[in-house]
Amino acid sequence: MKKYIDMSKEELVQLKEKLEKKYKKAKELGLQLDMSRGKPCKEQLDLSMPMMKTLSGKVLTCEQGVDCRNYGVLEGINEAKRMLSDMIECPIENIIMYGNSSLNVMYDTVSRSMTHGVMGSTPWMKLDKPVKFLCPSPGYDRHFAICEFFGIEMITVPMLPTGPDMDMVEELVSSDEMIKGIWCVPKYSNPQGITYSDETVRRFARLKPAAKDFRIYWDNAYGIHHLYKHDQDNIIEILGEADSVGNGDIVYKFCSTSKVTFPGSGVAGIAASDANLEFIRKQMSIATIGYDKVNQLRHSRFFDNFDGVMKHMRKHAKILLPKFKTVIDKCESELGGLGIGEWTNPKGGYFISFETLEGCAKKVVSMCKEAGVIMTPAGATFPYGKDPKDSNIRIAPSFPSLEELEQATEIFILCVKLASVDKILETK
Amino acid sequence: MKKYIDMSKEELVQLKEKLEKKYKKAKELGLQLDMSRGKPCKEQLDLSMPMMKTLSGKVLTCEQGVDCRNYGVLEGINEAKRMLSDMIECPIENIIMYGNSSLNVMYDTVSRSMTHGVMGSTPWMKLDKPVKFLCPSPGYDRHFAICEFFGIEMITVPMLPTGPDMDMVEELVSSDEMIKGIWCVPKYSNPQGITYSDETVRRFARLKPAAKDFRIYWDNAYGIHHLYKHDQDNIIEILGEADSVGNGDIVYKFCSTSKVTFPGSGVAGIAASDANLEFIRKQMSIATIGYDKVNQLRHSRFFDNFDGVMKHMRKHAKILLPKFKTVIDKCESELGGLGIGEWTNPKGGYFISFETLEGCAKKVVSMCKEAGVIMTPAGATFPYGKDPKDSNIRIAPSFPSLEELEQATEIFILCVKLASVDKILETK
Repeated sequence: MKKYIDMSKEELVQLKEKLEKKYKKAKELGLQLDMSRGKPCKEQLDLSMPMMKTLSGKVLTCEQGVDCRNYGVLEGINEAKRMLSDMIECPIENIIMYGNSSLNVMYDTVSRSMTHGVMGSTPWMKLDKPVKFLCPSPGYDRHFAICEFFGIEMITVPMLPTGPDMDMVEELVSSDEMIKGIWCVPKYSNPQGITYSDETVRRFARLKPAAKDFRIYWDNAYGIHHLYKHDQDNIIEILGEADSVGNGDIVYKFCSTSKVTFPGSGVAGIAASDANLEFIRKQMSIATIGYDKVNQLRHSRFFDNFDGVMKHMRKHAKILLPKFKTVIDKCESELGGLGIGEWTNPKGGYFISFETLEGCAKKVVSMCKEAGVIMTPAGATFPYGKDPKDSNIRIAPSFPSLEELEQATEIFILCVKLASVDKILETK
Repeated sequence: MKKYIDMSKEELVQLKEKLEKKYKKAKELGLQLDMSRGKPCKEQLDLSMPMMKTLSGKVLTCEQGVDCRNYGVLEGINEAKRMLSDMIECPIENIIMYGNSSLNVMYDTVSRSMTHGVMGSTPWMKLDKPVKFLCPSPGYDRHFAICEFFGIEMITVPMLPTGPDMDMVEELVSSDEMIKGIWCVPKYSNPQGITYSDETVRRFARLKPAAKDFRIYWDNAYGIHHLYKHDQDNIIEILGEADSVGNGDIVYKFCSTSKVTFPGSGVAGIAASDANLEFIRKQMSIATIGYDKVNQLRHSRFFDNFDGVMKHMRKHAKILLPKFKTVIDKCESELGGLGIGEWTNPKGGYFISFETLEGCAKKVVSMCKEAGVIMTPAGATFPYGKDPKDSNIRIAPSFPSLEELEQATEIFILCVKLASVDKILETK
């Protein structure tokens, strides 16, 4: 394979003509394919259908002795707490169950800090200057959207293969007391699939923030979402690690079963230190009489124990792995050696991250759209939707069928080639 | 029956001795009874158990054509919207579905106003002075708790047999732009079971508040919770009424199935004008990817249509009516004509409201507790937990069995008598 950059102008012009013909044909197919969001596919959802039967005709009393159908047990039932505690490796006592979505728990956590501060600190809305958050990027667009909604200033921190650039994190956090948080997807990160290294987690656990109400927003979205049976990433449990160095209040861990059972109809929770939870409970007792315990019980009974959860996750992996491989194999065979793109090959999570040549991502995504393939908007993986290099594209392979995915990937690759030829021609 | 107030000191002292003996005996029974919260009883919960089977093995696609198990349909499925729209008599287009609790929707609504204002107004946290809410009282303690949590100043408005004192409401609302809201339980109110009169609703719909971001917080908690088949209260639908006089933005309606199916495992929503909903949607799209559509579908399929809902509510009524009658009949036979208490006889809802002589409520509740009968704390039905007359007690008859309820009511009546004798003796 000859690198595009090494081609002559003539070669490139010829190539462009060929690619354009292909692209024209592709558009004529009138496809409607979607690789934009991390949605499980139908086969994955079917895996959890037996859960719909776990409660019919049975006594719905939880371990605390309370009828789950009625009011009571504000913080959630023990069975469900145990499930999450196994998933995120925290003691049950450090977990509070919420509703159906960890995103909503994160929103609520930021919202509470705006109106009531953190463990006695000044409410962020009462501060003279706007609060700031660190945003390791590329990252999760919905994290950034929460910041934007509350007028929180976002500072981009580069992602390295080991996680966020910790030199930068440490320096910023220790010197600026307006920095009140950092968004982290520590395992199989969105979108790159990076798992933070042991050193990264240890440095997080030992942060010495200028702001007393600084917290790490540790979004355990893909903690058990492995693609392989044996080749799995592991990560240090940060709450325990932070606690062991007297820094236990520094982190909130968020967790849900959205991509374990049903997105939107799962259960979610937060894990934090006793002191953090005590503060959170005060708000919780005002904001609700309790979340859906029947659904908590439905989940606990379906899985029985953590072994049940992990067996279930293997079934997801068997459906997902061929999809990841389809995209990655195609990229390797079609783009390998051309020097016009790089892509991740994660061991878990929901995404493949693609890096185009600088200044090509927007064009690729818009060309895909024209040919009937919806990608996550370029830039979405950066604060304010602005990718400074305009190069990152998030690929979500879970939802389409294998056949659709092949088609969609082919079109994506075609668009990458075309946009790259144009880009390189500009310099010739 | 001789009124206590007409008794001589000697008669009262004799009576007191007799009552004290009874009370001593009652305490020795070591009862554990609870008339404190509006919790459905087991038989009521059992009514909804067939709902647990409505989704097993079936296709879970909603009317919008979306698989309810997956992400999508942020505002909720049409089937569920229709169910709530029938319950609160609003067009489907004016409804957004939320999670499992209308209390949480109300909390969220106030919280959003604190951080983002209302339809473009200044966020309440950015105002120089604290916001104020009108609190018709006796009212719902959890409404008042939301205000207290956000530092919103509460102004008590007396409840009349027709609803809140509208002269006072109109005067306050039109003259003070810091007044941003009023809490209403318009039908079978908590705790009195009062249904607002047509005139009251019409005056609400025509309010001319000094504050543009004033809203009526219309908590339709008991809209279809009739006790009788034919003798039912009706109420004017306020959103339509307000809209008809060009005032459609003035009201938020809240609704849930907490006391239709399972408390905490039902579905909830808000109804409001297009302009209000547009503002709410902006926040919603940040705060969640969507609420539990599977549970929305479970509810819709269980009831099929509004007729199904109403038939279900009749079953609740058949369980609840004997409980209400037990308390009320006992009050009538034991307290009638004594001049030491008044109680409501509502046609629906979850509560009976009891008025002791001035200055007796706290004592009655604490005496009940000593004898093993838990009542809602005296004062809870007023802002800041302070009943200026110390006379209102909320009775929640739904949860205990008929037998328990008889016992509990007897002890309650005994405590009312004892506290009243003491009170009257002070003046002799």
